[in-house]
Amino acid sequence: MTELKAGLQGVVVAQTKMSHVLGEEGRLIYAGYDIHDLAEQATFEEIAYMFWYWTLPNRRQLDGFDDSLKARRGLPFHVMELIRSAPTVQSHPMSVLRTSVSALALGDPGSNDISQASNLRRSADLTAKIPTIVAAHARNRKGLEPLGPRDDLDHASNFLYMLRGSVPSPIEARALNLYLVLLADHGFNASTFSARVTAATQSDIFSAITSAIGTLKGPAHGGAGEVAMQQFFDIGKVENVEPWFQKLRAQRGRISGFGHREYKVEDPRAVHLRQAAGQLAEMTDSRWVNIAEKLEQAARADPYFIERKLFVNVDYYSAPLLYALGIEPDLFTSVFSMARIVGWTGHLLEQYADNRLIRPRAEYIGPTNLKWVPVDQRG
Amino acid sequence: MTELKAGLQGVVVAQTKMSHVLGEEGRLIYAGYDIHDLAEQATFEEIAYMFWYWTLPNRRQLDGFDDSLKARRGLPFHVMELIRSAPTVQSHPMSVLRTSVSALALGDPGSNDISQASNLRRSADLTAKIPTIVAAHARNRKGLEPLGPRDDLDHASNFLYMLRGSVPSPIEARALNLYLVLLADHGFNASTFSARVTAATQSDIFSAITSAIGTLKGPAHGGAGEVAMQQFFDIGKVENVEPWFQKLRAQRGRISGFGHREYKVEDPRAVHLRQAAGQLAEMTDSRWVNIAEKLEQAARADPYFIERKLFVNVDYYSAPLLYALGIEPDLFTSVFSMARIVGWTGHLLEQYADNRLIRPRAEYIGPTNLKWVPVDQRG
Repeated sequence: MTELKAGLQGVVVAQTKMSHVLGEEGRLIYAGYDIHDLAEQATFEEIAYMFWYWTLPNRRQLDGFDDSLKARRGLPFHVMELIRSAPTVQSHPMSVLRTSVSALALGDPGSNDISQASNLRRSADLTAKIPTIVAAHARNRKGLEPLGPRDDLDHASNFLYMLRGSVPSPIEARALNLYLVLLADHGFNASTFSARVTAATQSDIFSAITSAIGTLKGPAHGGAGEVAMQQFFDIGKVENVEPWFQKLRAQRGRISGFGHREYKVEDPRAVHLRQAAGQLAEMTDSRWVNIAEKLEQAARADPYFIERKLFVNVDYYSAPLLYALGIEPDLFTSVFSMARIVGWTGHLLEQYADNRLIRPRAEYIGPTNLKWVPVDQRG
Repeated sequence: MTELKAGLQGVVVAQTKMSHVLGEEGRLIYAGYDIHDLAEQATFEEIAYMFWYWTLPNRRQLDGFDDSLKARRGLPFHVMELIRSAPTVQSHPMSVLRTSVSALALGDPGSNDISQASNLRRSADLTAKIPTIVAAHARNRKGLEPLGPRDDLDHASNFLYMLRGSVPSPIEARALNLYLVLLADHGFNASTFSARVTAATQSDIFSAITSAIGTLKGPAHGGAGEVAMQQFFDIGKVENVEPWFQKLRAQRGRISGFGHREYKVEDPRAVHLRQAAGQLAEMTDSRWVNIAEKLEQAARADPYFIERKLFVNVDYYSAPLLYALGIEPDLFTSVFSMARIVGWTGHLLEQYADNRLIRPRAEYIGPTNLKWVPVDQRG
């Protein structure tokens, strides 16, 4: 029998030019560019262009690209109706997003076309419409009227406007843009992999992105940010950090937002998120960042965390950053989807260009020779 | 660098007690029982019970289980509204099914609960409701009123009733039951794998089944039956088989419904499907089965097919069987979902019971040291 590769840890499934995680060095590269350079200089729209067209746009190209994204932000009537329907009010935003993205295929006459030209159009469509879905649902569930997109605002600013009803400050817009850039891709994470497994049967891009959203939803993946924020709420105030941490250690619990399968040093995204979260907190409420920083210090001084090389991961400071932007914790994973959509679609363009079925095997460990007994002869 | 395992062919990802494909011997086992015994004796409902509870029900247990499935067949209002919405009329049935199944989570207060008790209830819910979704959409797109389920009919008969508006003959009901039994599970196929990848982030069962449906949709997986039927339509009549086949061979084309990654002898399911399709055809129109049989004979007499051990697979005779039941070809993959749902949910119960992240790696083949140039300095 072939060796069992549970979790596929370390198994190399494909080649990619999208992103490169150097876990030992703490480096992350998107399409050749270091994440630190991108964090300081790139817009989210530029990252999308780079992942889809494999070149950096000049000013004229970028302006045209921005326009084409803006033109796609509106939702079809049936998707808006779905978002407004009563059962979505009580539902997790990721369930609503998953259903709405799947529904975008309905009525789209090219939804089954998996040519590159079609997939590029639909990548732009999905990237432009996901923020509108997230904001519309967030408002509808509070009894507020959803707001239409504004084409004088960039991707990050427009989302905050649609969510909150007011244009964000430049520092807020920059913080969300930074978040979107930093979370746009990360190697073969589970949601990206699930999108590629779906596409590998030559299924369509809506199916593949729907799979990715459902996979990102899990608390062991994109759902971790919401869990991290809940943890800071549980601690409640800075003075509680030390006793909370000591109790956690005594119970051998784990800190949400610490540790990563790949990084053995600090996640290179964490430094930017910590800084941006701190900057936003100065303008609003510094409580949650202060709790996060104090807890990080306590953990990093603890031999358990030092020996196991456990550092904060991307979810840890994302939580207070998004919260300071007025985003409710159960929306965090949806906002993560707004970032990762360009990574997912970039990976899908690679997958469709050289597609083959992804079908591993299982080891059967049950019996092989049971005798069927008709129902009326069973005890 | 670790070896590239493109497509994960031969890689063993997990252990399972669900089903066992012995490709060299042409055997298929479900939970210990040979598929030939199940084909002759089992009802689809018994297979569901077996995969979820790991025992065969006695008469009293089976009757109670049947009742609980019947009680779950109705759709929530918002899902029926979605199916009735205008854009679904032009949409592929699998896009409608994917969206509707995702929408079943909305308004379900336990939709994020991944405990075994919750997952068992939702496995029954999904199994009972998928046929109602498929039939409602099939009627709505033709301008016919969807029909409610009838609790005096078993799973297979009720679906045909809801689809066609009349109770099927016993031979028709047996044929669909046989199809559902034979297609209920098949090792780690791509859709089952995608469901497990999604569940492995601790995401919910609706997310996982939505992924599976999107993955099954692809023509390299569940979509193959629809393609096989189109091929028989293209041939048109029995006299065309020989010239069609010779032209195909000259162009080095392939026959839809032939060949399988695992089986090197005849797929054990094919014998039952061939027989049942022939029996149904005698009562209706034998043209498509006659074409299929003639084409199979031509191919199996050809050295190319003999040397490469290419036999008909499960999709080949499924096509004329389903067509003879009055099921339109673009519904075939949805009917496949009606069968595979019990396999998917059985695998998910296994996955949730011993869950760990499924996250392989990619080999990065792009550059690592590109220098970022601000947009206004680009050429």
